[in-house]
Formats: sequence, C-alpha cells, structure tokens
Amino acid sequence: MELLERRIKQSGTVIGTNILKVDSFLNHQLDIALLCELGRDVYHHYQNCAVNKILTIEASGIAYACMTAQFFDCNVVFAKKKGAANQSADVYTANVHSFTHGNDNVIAVDRRYLKAGDRVLIMDDFLAHGEAIRGLMALVAQSGATLVGAAVAVEKGFQGGGDSLRQEGLEVYSQAIVDKMSESEIVFRPNK
Amino acid sequence: MELLERRIKQSGTVIGTNILKVDSFLNHQLDIALLCELGRDVYHHYQNCAVNKILTIEASGIAYACMTAQFFDCNVVFAKKKGAANQSADVYTANVHSFTHGNDNVIAVDRRYLKAGDRVLIMDDFLAHGEAIRGLMALVAQSGATLVGAAVAVEKGFQGGGDSLRQEGLEVYSQAIVDKMSESEIVFRPNK
Repeated sequence: MELLERRIKQSGTVIGTNILKVDSFLNHQLDIALLCELGRDVYHHYQNCAVNKILTIEASGIAYACMTAQFFDCNVVFAKKKGAANQSADVYTANVHSFTHGNDNVIAVDRRYLKAGDRVLIMDDFLAHGEAIRGLMALVAQSGATLVGAAVAVEKGFQGGGDSLRQEGLEVYSQAIVDKMSESEIVFRPNK
Repeated sequence: MELLERRIKQSGTVIGTNILKVDSFLNHQLDIALLCELGRDVYHHYQNCAVNKILTIEASGIAYACMTAQFFDCNVVFAKKKGAANQSADVYTANVHSFTHGNDNVIAVDRRYLKAGDRVLIMDDFLAHGEAIRGLMALVAQSGATLVGAAVAVEKGFQGGGDSLRQEGLEVYSQAIVDKMSESEIVFRPNK
C-alpha cells in the first residue's frame, strides 16, 4: 500500500539489520488518520469474507485492529500476554516466542469471546518470524472458529514468517512488505 | 453517561468487593460501536479545550483513546510499561503501582512524542486509586505540555482516586462512577 510505504520511508528508522522503528506513527505514537486509512484498505481486501471478529494481541495491535473493526462493524478481541488477577481461568492459551524481547509469553483469550461460529480476521502491526500470528492461530483453532486470514501493517519479508504462513495456506495481507533494509535504504516488495 | 451505566449493569460482573469485570466490552473484547459512542461523549466534554494529543497507557486504554481521538482529529501516544529492546533511552518515565497486579511498573513515553506545546488529554479505561493517571500526569509535567484534563470510562468512586485528583484541581470526566457495588447491586453516582 503506497500510503504506508511512503510513510515508512519518510518516518521509519532502521537500526542495525533487524529493527525497523515506526513508533512515531504505528506503535507508540499512533497516527489515527493513517490508521483509519489502513483500516479502510484492510476492509477492502477482506470485505467479502463475512468477518465478524478481529483478533489481535496486546499492546500495539490494538489500535490497528480497532480502527479496522469500524469498517467491518465488528468487535475486537485482544489476546493478553499473561494472567491477571481478575482474568478468568477459562481461557484458550498459546505460547509465543518474542525475538524482539528474547522471551516467551503465554497469550490468552477468554473462551467466551471466541466461538465456533465466529469468522475471525487476525491482525497485528508487525509480522517478522510469524510467532505472534501462529499463537493467535492456535487460539482460533482451539475455539473452533473459522480463520479467514491475517492482516498486517508491516511485514519484514526478509525474516520469512509471512511467506512460511502463505506456503501453509494462510491468506496473509501485508500492507507493506520490507524485503531488504539498511540504515540508508528500505526496499519494499512490489505489489503483484 | 447512561449508555455506559446500562451496559455495565447488563454485562459487568462484580467479584468480591473490589473487582468489576467489564471485559466483555471494554478491556478484553472491545465493543467498537460502544467505544465510538464513548469517544463522541468525551469529545463533547472537552471539545473547546484545543486538545491536540491523547495520552493513555498500554494496553486497555488504547482502544478507548483511539476511538476518541478520531473526534478530536489528533494523535494518541500510549505509555509503555517497561523498556523494550527497540525503545529509545530518551524517554520520560514514572512509577505506577498496580493494586490489581500487586506490582510496580515503570511507564515511559519517548520525549519526541510529548512536547511543551502540546495540549494533552489523559485517558484510561479505569480509574480506581488513580495511580495510572498520576503516572501519566508525571510524564506530562516532565514534558512541559499543558494538561487539559482526564477522561475515564469507569471510575470506582469508592476507591477514592478520582475525588483526590479532583480535589487537587484536575478536571476528571468519568463516564460512569461506581459508588457502591456488590455481587447483587451496582450503584452509580448521580450526574450533577
């Protein structure tokens, strides 16, 4: 999506070989007008799929999911990263390894909010190795809901997670795919 | 706000004397249509205050802040709860004690996203003892930005945090204030 690619070139910062910082608009400061346009575009991609629920993961997926959910007129559920005192024990859980933070998290969704009849779109701001998406897929599978596909704002294509998921048959719509990056250059995968 | 009070009565669950679960619509599953109405109402309250930034805290404040920001046509910044590998060291920080989780968190906002010229509205889904709001206030004070006030979806009035903040001069707009609750009854503070 050209709007997002332009914004990444303009405001993103590459650190080393792996880190693409887009925290001025996507995951710390949130550019709400941009997120609204991203949401509209995700809706166009999936509008005929009868999506009735968007599943994301705290924290930085929430804004992206919410802005998109308005177009689908559906609710969002966000997976939580660890048990909280006031969280029901009646949850679906999955393990997610974070390469960014170098640790494992258990993610959980209350069973009441993901049901066999649901048609779920998974969303996240970033896709790198695909660990978060796989964790969310495991939650959907446990619930018996139908997984429609995934939508991601920024895919780091060179880390391979997105292409692995596609090879396994998941529809992954990434709005910008970075195939190569360095501190002087960001190369996006051309649209098919 | 009657719409929210009705929803809390209908879908909220009181556990013991302190926990009000509203995770079916406010902080786990997110009722986007409701959040949109809450956002519109917050906008009506603060529309003449020249708000140009909404500051919240991850994770459950994000949805509420984003849906509201659309009405103000402004950006959101969410404070992060701990340092991440790809987070700049150049941050404002504050300590926040969580009575829910029984621990302390350092919250942080990148200095680039909160500036002396900003007019900031603080938002959070819940206000109990007021610790999160106080932490966010500390970040705003460090930045030199102007704090316009706070907006909260659910205030647990009986825990006193909101009234303390009001006594200290902060404008706190809570959309529903629970003054008393038990497993059989939820009593809201009447509107003034």
